[in-house]
Amino acid sequence: MEINLVSDTVTKPTQEMLQFMFRAKVGDDVYKQDPSVNELEEAVAHLFGMEAALFFPSGTMANQTAIKLHTQPGEQVICDKYSHIYHYEGGGASFNSGVSCCLVDGTRGMITAEQVRASINDPEFYHAPKTALVSIENTTNKGGGACYEVLELKRIKQVCVEYNLKYHLDGARLWNALVAKKQHPKQFGELFDTISVCLSKGLGAPVGSLLLGTKADMKRALRIRKIFGGGMRQAGYLAAAGMYALQNHILRLEEDHKRAQELGALLATLPWVAKVEPIETNIIIFSVRPTLDEQWVIDKLKQKNIHISSMGPGKLRIVTHLDYKQVMHSYVMEHLGKLIF
Amino acid sequence: MEINLVSDTVTKPTQEMLQFMFRAKVGDDVYKQDPSVNELEEAVAHLFGMEAALFFPSGTMANQTAIKLHTQPGEQVICDKYSHIYHYEGGGASFNSGVSCCLVDGTRGMITAEQVRASINDPEFYHAPKTALVSIENTTNKGGGACYEVLELKRIKQVCVEYNLKYHLDGARLWNALVAKKQHPKQFGELFDTISVCLSKGLGAPVGSLLLGTKADMKRALRIRKIFGGGMRQAGYLAAAGMYALQNHILRLEEDHKRAQELGALLATLPWVAKVEPIETNIIIFSVRPTLDEQWVIDKLKQKNIHISSMGPGKLRIVTHLDYKQVMHSYVMEHLGKLIF
Amino acid sequence: MEINLVSDTVTKPTQEMLQFMFRAKVGDDVYKQDPSVNELEEAVAHLFGMEAALFFPSGTMANQTAIKLHTQPGEQVICDKYSHIYHYEGGGASFNSGVSCCLVDGTRGMITAEQVRASINDPEFYHAPKTALVSIENTTNKGGGACYEVLELKRIKQVCVEYNLKYHLDGARLWNALVAKKQHPKQFGELFDTISVCLSKGLGAPVGSLLLGTKADMKRALRIRKIFGGGMRQAGYLAAAGMYALQNHILRLEEDHKRAQELGALLATLPWVAKVEPIETNIIIFSVRPTLDEQWVIDKLKQKNIHISSMGPGKLRIVTHLDYKQVMHSYVMEHLGKLIF
Amino acid sequence: MEINLVSDTVTKPTQEMLQFMFRAKVGDDVYKQDPSVNELEEAVAHLFGMEAALFFPSGTMANQTAIKLHTQPGEQVICDKYSHIYHYEGGGASFNSGVSCCLVDGTRGMITAEQVRASINDPEFYHAPKTALVSIENTTNKGGGACYEVLELKRIKQVCVEYNLKYHLDGARLWNALVAKKQHPKQFGELFDTISVCLSKGLGAPVGSLLLGTKADMKRALRIRKIFGGGMRQAGYLAAAGMYALQNHILRLEEDHKRAQELGALLATLPWVAKVEPIETNIIIFSVRPTLDEQWVIDKLKQKNIHISSMGPGKLRIVTHLDYKQVMHSYVMEHLGKLIF
Repeated sequence: MEINLVSDTVTKPTQEMLQFMFRAKVGDDVYKQDPSVNELEEAVAHLFGMEAALFFPSGTMANQTAIKLHTQPGEQVICDKYSHIYHYEGGGASFNSGVSCCLVDGTRGMITAEQVRASINDPEFYHAPKTALVSIENTTNKGGGACYEVLELKRIKQVCVEYNLKYHLDGARLWNALVAKKQHPKQFGELFDTISVCLSKGLGAPVGSLLLGTKADMKRALRIRKIFGGGMRQAGYLAAAGMYALQNHILRLEEDHKRAQELGALLATLPWVAKVEPIETNIIIFSVRPTLDEQWVIDKLKQKNIHISSMGPGKLRIVTHLDYKQVMHSYVMEHLGKLIF
Repeated sequence: MEINLVSDTVTKPTQEMLQFMFRAKVGDDVYKQDPSVNELEEAVAHLFGMEAALFFPSGTMANQTAIKLHTQPGEQVICDKYSHIYHYEGGGASFNSGVSCCLVDGTRGMITAEQVRASINDPEFYHAPKTALVSIENTTNKGGGACYEVLELKRIKQVCVEYNLKYHLDGARLWNALVAKKQHPKQFGELFDTISVCLSKGLGAPVGSLLLGTKADMKRALRIRKIFGGGMRQAGYLAAAGMYALQNHILRLEEDHKRAQELGALLATLPWVAKVEPIETNIIIFSVRPTLDEQWVIDKLKQKNIHISSMGPGKLRIVTHLDYKQVMHSYVMEHLGKLIF
Repeated sequence: MEINLVSDTVTKPTQEMLQFMFRAKVGDDVYKQDPSVNELEEAVAHLFGMEAALFFPSGTMANQTAIKLHTQPGEQVICDKYSHIYHYEGGGASFNSGVSCCLVDGTRGMITAEQVRASINDPEFYHAPKTALVSIENTTNKGGGACYEVLELKRIKQVCVEYNLKYHLDGARLWNALVAKKQHPKQFGELFDTISVCLSKGLGAPVGSLLLGTKADMKRALRIRKIFGGGMRQAGYLAAAGMYALQNHILRLEEDHKRAQELGALLATLPWVAKVEPIETNIIIFSVRPTLDEQWVIDKLKQKNIHISSMGPGKLRIVTHLDYKQVMHSYVMEHLGKLIF
Repeated sequence: MEINLVSDTVTKPTQEMLQFMFRAKVGDDVYKQDPSVNELEEAVAHLFGMEAALFFPSGTMANQTAIKLHTQPGEQVICDKYSHIYHYEGGGASFNSGVSCCLVDGTRGMITAEQVRASINDPEFYHAPKTALVSIENTTNKGGGACYEVLELKRIKQVCVEYNLKYHLDGARLWNALVAKKQHPKQFGELFDTISVCLSKGLGAPVGSLLLGTKADMKRALRIRKIFGGGMRQAGYLAAAGMYALQNHILRLEEDHKRAQELGALLATLPWVAKVEPIETNIIIFSVRPTLDEQWVIDKLKQKNIHISSMGPGKLRIVTHLDYKQVMHSYVMEHLGKLIF
């Protein structure tokens, strides 16, 4: 039994999801004739109360398309210093859109309206990049699965309106936030110009993300997706998996969160753990005592077939997910508790 | 019975392919841990005698990645005036790679070594873009499925070597050429720096293309694919469909070619047809009499549930494929022959 | 006595121009505090009846800025196949703006409204680049100094309005057209979104071009100029030379044109000359007999200290200008007439 | 008497410099035939012991060209958080080169070898941008004219060699460092892949910067300069001013430094000044008491015809230079001392 807690991206479809995929009606989505893709796009747009949605092969492409939609080359995006769009999208913001990031020193990956306001360059001062976009991540990945309060997101929205900035939500793990904070998708749909959501992390679909926005923006997004090479033919098999996940895998995220809490509580009692970051969803970030190399922890757990990952010197990350079952959880709780350094 | 002859991209998986897909072993391909993707990449690389391959969500992304691999911003790509990379990739060569195309006036989409040589800008004349890449399409799409002689491709290769240019093959329909000309993949593998091949056109897989090249180039291509957002998670379902197609759908392309020949022969006898371009594979391009609007032909066939597409004023295209069965063919032959204008 | 007929860019300031430069009032133009630059910008904008102008270190930068102003990455520019922006700006349209050129097969570098209309991509067909800009060159450089009729430019304008395209004039040698066709700058100012004009070709200033357009566009152009690194500090010395040239060197272009006519008439009588293109301004393009290598002509004239340039196999170009005086002209007429092959 | 202490870019040529400029021999530098430009390029390359140099209309273009020379789109540049290339070049690093900056939290604009090492992304981790370049600023602009020790620059060089990174010096005010630290240009020439130096700041020339590097790199830089539109025709007038400045205005920078010291010493005694940053060259950065708005200081000095600039909330900057004469200095010292808030 291999237990992979490296990321929630490693999940495989359940038998039920596979059968659902298998029976999907498909067509050529490049001509917008795939019924399963069309159905998924409409369903997710409706769920968020937004005009339209577009299916993408990855969350990176959905985010990169949003950045391109909202910026011109040379402009600047305000985001947290931990942002996925800055760190983990291959430098795509600069490559694809020619923009730079103004990195804000937020708290666990979350930034405030005041920080956004202070980061805006004077548009008359033409030596500095023009600020064009604010990009939020919810839940935060590198920030340990932290969730924004809607109130703060509304305050940031006000700054965006005041300074004529666009407002994007990287919602790769937004489903986790919705469940953890008991929020409704429409609360987000009414705030943002675009939202990306992912089907292949917590929801357990094999491939796929969506970008949500106005009809006009999604029409432009279709062109950008084409340019990146994200147009797929009979993508309906993937879309069907996403549809199944939406209908069956959202509420069960609570299980992942509960197990994350239990792991966090255990870690907090261990002598070799220095600090466990607050846990709100399915990500646990913790640091070890200064004298301990985080790689030793990874290696020792690996001997027990438990896989976790490093987040930099002295820092470790555990992610719970659909394929992390109760029997595995009991096993991990037992062996983690026995670990000695 | 709807008969779609618009493109060979509209095919849907057969029941056998579907079963093969859903039995596939999958993993997270972003970590290169999807066994079906890995197997397909190795198999296709081996087939062409090339070092490595990389799976892509589309042929456009495979081509765009090749262009980026071989060029620097500001440089120039030599290609035929009908090229897919110039006309049908959304302007991606300029958007993604910052390069321009030097369009050659070839024959049915095919260019010669002499034309390539005459199109190279003097590298010392720094006012003109530096020529960096020659990109060939085989079979030609807008050129009516024409196939290159290997001898001409070798002669172009010599020019590339002489002028230090890279050499890419857009092989979206290379399978058709291999069958039609009885050529071997290795004859192409030994000539080109990179080759893109498509699984979702003639081969009938739902989604997917591969780029082939050296290990070093494919390592760089992985980074570019990430930047475009082409990294997919459990992509093995798609790869498995491709593997099935490789094993089962190549030789049957001869049927598509035979039906195309029969359609062409019939068209050549019709009074309202002005000219039928030479047919080598599964694409038929023909023009109508000057007094006839090609849209009327499309509309009349549509009434018979036969769908074909325009290639510009007075020009029409028919594409045969996996889902165009004998019963459909008989039906089309009958009704096409009866058409009166 | 070296006689350089390679280009009108080789002129050096006259003593009068130098003294005018010398006495210029200057300031830091990066802060828009250089009085000579400001004065020149206002004067040229006024001359064309346009809202504003911006000074640039080169015509290439003025054109590149215009292309960037009017396009988004991935879009397409319609221009003649001989265009300077395609051939002689280092591939900048793709490098700087990420756009491609749709090359029109015009006459002596000039295109028609019908050709523009036929070159526009269907904006709903998202596989093809979106057409955004029409760029005209007047006089045409590679087209042999040909001049547009205002009527044709107006007809092209109508197509631009109909299809919502921007309209740019590369007027590097517009001064020559104005003199040759007795046109007024305002006739152009009222048609185009932007116009670039050059001070260092026919007008004989050492450095400098201007871009003309709306105040809003020139404000955006200032930012683009900054990004390219075109902001200069005490640029007033260069601007003053331009101001002097505007006041003193426009009408005298007639001399250049007259000498070009005389050279053309002589060439037409020579047995080794196959064809002299129509001459409207200061550029003479002629071809030699098929058996004659154009390089031999260049070499023989070089021995007489007369320098002209090749325009490709069998083609030669002569450009008259401010520094090509009557005494030189007599000398060239004499020696050109005596040339034997 | 207006006293402009906003920047050392506002200086105007002396009469001697002007006379030198207007006696310059010029030619068409686009063909590399301007003797004054060629002479300057050779002289500066020789001074730094580097192979070649290229003349530019601005320091921004010289830096942007260096970034483009050393990077590929998507890659990352390590630099201090105060860097001119990040803040004051219009977002050009992303626009022109498609790269992002990894901002290091240095001291007064200076970074250490350890900080560089810690900022390098693992080249095997293809999700993160590949680190390609380290860019240093000396003296630091926003860092208050601070000067690096050569020893630290050598240590950074070792990291660059170890990780195969390129190494650029933005030497806009390197002349000030050379004079202040009694360093020799060759100490820098032997360390860096490219160095930009400016003629229009402390040296007092009206326009111009140079980029220094290998012959091969400067050949590539010529092409990039063309693409940006930085090719100027008879640029020799500007180059001559630079040559004069090199011969006559370097040692006198000591005067600027001495006056900066005197201003700093005075400021340190004033009750409304909270802190004066260490002064090494010609830039004084100081902060005011929390209750005082820095704009009030600017406004009060303006009434005395003394112009200084804000560096953000509570922070002010004074820059001494060639046109800030002793009589002005006495006047400023007197009136600054009398200022009451």
